[in-house]
Amino acid sequence: MSASTAMFLRMSDPTALATTYFETLERRDWAALSACLDPDVVYEMPQSRERIRGREKFLQFNQEYPGDWHLSPRLVVADSANAVVRFDWTLDDEAGVAVTFLGLDGDRIVSVTDFWPDTSEPNPSRVHLVEPW
Amino acid sequence: MSASTAMFLRMSDPTALATTYFETLERRDWAALSACLDPDVVYEMPQSRERIRGREKFLQFNQEYPGDWHLSPRLVVADSANAVVRFDWTLDDEAGVAVTFLGLDGDRIVSVTDFWPDTSEPNPSRVHLVEPW
Repeated sequence: MSASTAMFLRMSDPTALATTYFETLERRDWAALSACLDPDVVYEMPQSRERIRGREKFLQFNQEYPGDWHLSPRLVVADSANAVVRFDWTLDDEAGVAVTFLGLDGDRIVSVTDFWPDTSEPNPSRVHLVEPW
Repeated sequence: MSASTAMFLRMSDPTALATTYFETLERRDWAALSACLDPDVVYEMPQSRERIRGREKFLQFNQEYPGDWHLSPRLVVADSANAVVRFDWTLDDEAGVAVTFLGLDGDRIVSVTDFWPDTSEPNPSRVHLVEPW
């Protein structure tokens, strides 16, 4: 890599990096996804307390994930060290909303933390304040 | 309010505004919380498809929320239009992690969108890649 290319990559936009992460996942473009990831990237799902260490295992996790899944980002919020993406997902006939936190180090993603909230029933205790949608 | 005070408030830091939102909730300081909120703030819980419109009803929702609840922010990510807060919560003997998106207009919060992900079991299909924690 030339010095000018390295400089370009170090200046990359956190929002663009987060968008590229989702686009390459959606396209199953594993080479391009890999280029976004630090070799020591750590993936965590706090709800199930599962952790996957390293780019190779994280790629394998995505490659092996069962079903026809699709991801559509709806909102990206980023500063220089983190990006957060709220996205719609479908998996075969299922659909939902999820949130991913990306830890960033320049042009590389060093951590991925996913939250997959389930749907729930409205709470009757607040029906006097709420409109359903 | 003097012109200089108004100018100061319009220049407020999105990260500080998000932090103040959580601090005032935790303190049950309803006047200070109210000062952060746009009169037309919209609160949404996408998991249960519940929406509360307006500052007065949103304050009432928080004032009436049952149990001894506490909120401890762990990560704030913000740009000029949005802030995202990942936080630990406790409610009596329960505990968990949740995520709040705040839509911002200058020094006012115009939308609050909460995700309350439940815990789940590790998925056996990926046990060869995962370390539990």
